Amino acid sequence: MLDAMGGDYAPAEIVKGAVDAAKDETLTVILVGDQAKVGLELKKYPKKSNIETVHASEDIAMSEHPVEAVRQKKDASINVCMRLLKEGKVDAVVSAGNTGAVMAAALFGLGRIKGIERPAIASLFPAVKGHTALLDIGANADCRPNHLVQFAYMGKAYIEKVIGVENPRIGLLNIGEEDEKGSELTVASNKLLRLERANGLNFIGNIEGKDILENNADVVVCDGFVGNVVLKFAEGLIFSLSRLIKQGLSPLAWLGLLLMLGSLFKIKSKVDYKKYGGAPLLGVNGVVIITHGRAKSETIKNSITAAAKAVRQNLIDAIRQIKPLENPVG
Amino acid sequence: MLDAMGGDYAPAEIVKGAVDAAKDETLTVILVGDQAKVGLELKKYPKKSNIETVHASEDIAMSEHPVEAVRQKKDASINVCMRLLKEGKVDAVVSAGNTGAVMAAALFGLGRIKGIERPAIASLFPAVKGHTALLDIGANADCRPNHLVQFAYMGKAYIEKVIGVENPRIGLLNIGEEDEKGSELTVASNKLLRLERANGLNFIGNIEGKDILENNADVVVCDGFVGNVVLKFAEGLIFSLSRLIKQGLSPLAWLGLLLMLGSLFKIKSKVDYKKYGGAPLLGVNGVVIITHGRAKSETIKNSITAAAKAVRQNLIDAIRQIKPLENPVG
Repeated sequence: MLDAMGGDYAPAEIVKGAVDAAKDETLTVILVGDQAKVGLELKKYPKKSNIETVHASEDIAMSEHPVEAVRQKKDASINVCMRLLKEGKVDAVVSAGNTGAVMAAALFGLGRIKGIERPAIASLFPAVKGHTALLDIGANADCRPNHLVQFAYMGKAYIEKVIGVENPRIGLLNIGEEDEKGSELTVASNKLLRLERANGLNFIGNIEGKDILENNADVVVCDGFVGNVVLKFAEGLIFSLSRLIKQGLSPLAWLGLLLMLGSLFKIKSKVDYKKYGGAPLLGVNGVVIITHGRAKSETIKNSITAAAKAVRQNLIDAIRQIKPLENPVG
Repeated sequence: MLDAMGGDYAPAEIVKGAVDAAKDETLTVILVGDQAKVGLELKKYPKKSNIETVHASEDIAMSEHPVEAVRQKKDASINVCMRLLKEGKVDAVVSAGNTGAVMAAALFGLGRIKGIERPAIASLFPAVKGHTALLDIGANADCRPNHLVQFAYMGKAYIEKVIGVENPRIGLLNIGEEDEKGSELTVASNKLLRLERANGLNFIGNIEGKDILENNADVVVCDGFVGNVVLKFAEGLIFSLSRLIKQGLSPLAWLGLLLMLGSLFKIKSKVDYKKYGGAPLLGVNGVVIITHGRAKSETIKNSITAAAKAVRQNLIDAIRQIKPLENPVG
């Protein structure tokens, strides 16, 4: 179930996350990777019957060209993971590895779900209330309107099944609220999405950048270029703001900061992406969750828990049942 | 020089900003708008010889369709402003009005600078060190690669002349650092921008969302769709974070907050967009600065100061001299 070799802190943090997740006895965690290295890490913890290992002789570095590496290294841990999933020997794959490589391995190893032209990666943004799923965040730099419709339905399935929001509100990321505003892509997508209302999609219209963190929609669809820029801008902003705050603090303010710590921790737990595990790759034939390359054990554990929920809630079946209206605008 | 009728707080805050700006005796501020209303506001302040008024019988509301309103209301304050600029009776226009209307009035009234196919709006992001100009932030939802090249040169002229950074670093907003990564638009734009290095453009390559606030480039170019989403996301994030912080504070933390205030003010002055005035509309025949519809007097004053600097530094001449390589990739 788990790619033990992916990520900046592999395999130590991956194994620790697996051990923490395995405290839930209803789960079996299978660590895929270099058996010697993984075994060494596992020895640090009491032996558990619901943690298994599978050997993979190769791994793919963050710097490698994803598609080439996946093609050439047949025994890379991520390829072994996808084979196990394809053969039904595991129910889901979680990896902190090279995002492009995970995607390529999933596409080659599992294939797309029929009707989904472009699998997409979704990211869950913590909002003031609840969460907002943004997709695509980078799998597809150039999209067509029907891709965005498919993203909308996949996002709906994910939010319903894994987060438990009923009849989620779907928004289209755009640069104005009016239906006729936006780029060629968003104007055409808005038209298609409005038609899908007759098909049960709760499309609430255009959403602007400022709405994402206000949870003014439960699912926000956009092309992978825009989604990726927004995601990285948000990560950068949190980093830059914290540096600005450090620069601005006087000694007296440090005392103030100390007093505020209790509250800050509460906020942190809400903002911190670690709490929400990784980003699901939606549209392939199996549950695949990609976590940040810098993921530590807590993120890994949460990603495993999220993957288990997606499996138990039959997320993949829900995506298989997506039937947008056929070519509604000719 | 100033559209007195645009913005949510017009004309009161606009007039106050004008009065503050006019403390610089080398400037003459001309308030364009309903003379009765503007006169009433002006009476609140001591009479100054370098503040004048010009009557305009109409104004354009935020909710109106920009192009239609600009076409139909010939005597709208923003149209009168552009006429005065065209006739050389003022040197620059500052408006807090409907962004689309300001753009339309500028295009109809002033025209584009020869060689600039698409005027663009630039926004100055406060970074950890210095500032990063992002353009376009909404004038052009769909762009071609040569537009982005023109944005790069206009951003360079603006940063050099108004902010005073020599040989500014130009980055292309993208979803990966490698030259061959990105959307069709950014891959093609990267190629063109690399060729412009031979023409003196300091193109440093692709820049990601996280780099904007780190000032890893002085000018970041993107299409107006992505730029607008990022700008509104950033505005929303600051708003949402402040709400999260308020929700999370215990009484003890409030005491801490009090102690931190001194530092927070310092940060605020760095982050607050008010300090940096409005967003220049680059590529039209005249200095035009668009401020936020919610702009209050301080923003208005800073925008007037920035406009004066752009005039004195001959920003428009610098943009007229832009000569990208001719069709470098055929």
